[in-house]
Amino acid sequence: METVTVNLGSRSYPIFVGRNLLSEVGSMLRAQNFQGGRAAVVTDSIVGKLYRDRVVETLKSAGFDPLVVEIPAGEEHKNLAWLAFLYDKLIDGRIERRTPLIALGGGVVGDMAGFAAATLQRGLPFVQIPTTLLAQVDASVGGKTAVNHSAGKNLIGAFYQPRFVVIDVETLRSLPKREFVAGLAEVIKYGVILSADLFTLIEEHLPRLLQLDAELLTFVIKTCCQLKALVVEEDETESDYRAILNFGHTLGHALESVTAYKQFLHGEAVAIGMAFATHLSHKRGLCSATVEQRVRKLLKKAGLPVDIPKDLKGDYLLFGLATDKKMAGGKVKFVCVEDFGKTCFEMLETKEIGTYL
Amino acid sequence: METVTVNLGSRSYPIFVGRNLLSEVGSMLRAQNFQGGRAAVVTDSIVGKLYRDRVVETLKSAGFDPLVVEIPAGEEHKNLAWLAFLYDKLIDGRIERRTPLIALGGGVVGDMAGFAAATLQRGLPFVQIPTTLLAQVDASVGGKTAVNHSAGKNLIGAFYQPRFVVIDVETLRSLPKREFVAGLAEVIKYGVILSADLFTLIEEHLPRLLQLDAELLTFVIKTCCQLKALVVEEDETESDYRAILNFGHTLGHALESVTAYKQFLHGEAVAIGMAFATHLSHKRGLCSATVEQRVRKLLKKAGLPVDIPKDLKGDYLLFGLATDKKMAGGKVKFVCVEDFGKTCFEMLETKEIGTYL
Repeated sequence: METVTVNLGSRSYPIFVGRNLLSEVGSMLRAQNFQGGRAAVVTDSIVGKLYRDRVVETLKSAGFDPLVVEIPAGEEHKNLAWLAFLYDKLIDGRIERRTPLIALGGGVVGDMAGFAAATLQRGLPFVQIPTTLLAQVDASVGGKTAVNHSAGKNLIGAFYQPRFVVIDVETLRSLPKREFVAGLAEVIKYGVILSADLFTLIEEHLPRLLQLDAELLTFVIKTCCQLKALVVEEDETESDYRAILNFGHTLGHALESVTAYKQFLHGEAVAIGMAFATHLSHKRGLCSATVEQRVRKLLKKAGLPVDIPKDLKGDYLLFGLATDKKMAGGKVKFVCVEDFGKTCFEMLETKEIGTYL
Repeated sequence: METVTVNLGSRSYPIFVGRNLLSEVGSMLRAQNFQGGRAAVVTDSIVGKLYRDRVVETLKSAGFDPLVVEIPAGEEHKNLAWLAFLYDKLIDGRIERRTPLIALGGGVVGDMAGFAAATLQRGLPFVQIPTTLLAQVDASVGGKTAVNHSAGKNLIGAFYQPRFVVIDVETLRSLPKREFVAGLAEVIKYGVILSADLFTLIEEHLPRLLQLDAELLTFVIKTCCQLKALVVEEDETESDYRAILNFGHTLGHALESVTAYKQFLHGEAVAIGMAFATHLSHKRGLCSATVEQRVRKLLKKAGLPVDIPKDLKGDYLLFGLATDKKMAGGKVKFVCVEDFGKTCFEMLETKEIGTYL
């Protein structure tokens, strides 16, 4: 088992990464000074079926009295109505101020359960067990919790740090291949923006990663968490520097938005966005052709899309970009690459962006 | 104008107390580095009628583009449904991450608008203009925001500090006398638990206070904010010491609860609770008979109730106490008095409490 510490003063917390950690959650809670009693588990209809029994068992054998609340799987349920359902079930289940609330699942479960934990009784202790690669390398670090609003994603939320995070790499075996690959997009992102070493490692060992080699997965996920932690420690509430994590996300979000979130998984849209941001960086003389080629090649080898589908190019996509949250003064902010591990921000007018599409 | 600073590190903020400050809100925002653009005002149907125009005017003349959202007055609207209404109106009104959200009203408006500010886009800058005495001396300091749930009050909320607070003592002239007097209960509370000087001052100048002498009100409200700030600075998230502010609230909450929040204003129930807690303190040999008499006498002179209505004494009230959030291990935690400015916590079994009723 590896441990990454996210250093945020009094809100610091450890991330445990390794094999078969699901069965350790009960004793981990004990080690973090939880004394037994009620423990709430929030999961969804798919992950619940696979792993709830193991979590319930470890909680029981450590002396806890588990309450499991299931929400239906899928981003379309990440809203205020299902949050109200969560509140009702948790309050009915007699949670108290010290009751740990454990999120068992992917991003939707983590975001919603995290927001419920942030707001029930003005804050319950929160524990995350992310079961998708994306949630493991992204949502484990940063404390972003939220639900969607019909006007936009994650419009209602809070920054709220967990007490600890448990990443059991074995849970990735039940993840659909397409979702695993989409998660790799974020892994590659950390390589591009923060670590040439990580990028090279993925280039060299991609087949082993795709075969879910547990040792390599543990190392790679740990590294991603460490890299993201360094960024979040610098800028917890995203006032400035943390925005580098949006590399590939500016175009990515626009692609997701103009396709109503139906055509691409998040990581797939981000992969196209990263290829585009690297292309743009090269065209503007910020990075070499080699950097652009290596990024494109690795994304493709991983099984990720890199080109904007022809039918999506055009004004509609530019309009999607122009309504991005990161827009300021009529320009769109792009995270660009100078070299592996070296980024800069560029403000572009939509007209100029159009010339690179 | 007087200024109290609440010292909470990077979340520190000033409270401005004085006359006719409503017309200064626009320039105060400017002075706090807000650059114009959208400014959202949340108020209720009663306070809105009285003061929204003045606030809109000061915002406009300082170069802001005000959006006013009104919720119906009354605690029964402090719930998730009206919060969702608030979210919709604010999002429709194109608020952005830097849009200041101004709460103009009493406790309900402050709590709900504060929670909306805490959670929209994971946190908008929040400004409070409390217009009731209770909100001015209580909600201005501490950052507690929340909505109610059918299972209990303030079950869903967050700790979220405002950027600044504006207390215009002139707004108290429009406050119903009964509400002003109920607010005095909290003022007297600060005297009992934290400051013999404040208690003596109120004893000596009660008539002037009841006549709404602006200079005296400014001094008293400023003092209450300073005293509460000292407590909150010590213990921001109520892990321990901050609980002394619950003096009078243990029985007070039970009284409100068994009468379904219809018979007493909060301050009235707290007044009875303070008289009881002081009585209990005397009976247990913690404070002198003089302390008990002075507390009772001042509350009565202010026009507050001090005795538990006969029809409410009995098992039902004890049951109300036994379900208090501050219950631990079958005992109820009371804040007791040793002398003015000196308190202690006592754990009592409900059976023993019954003997003092």
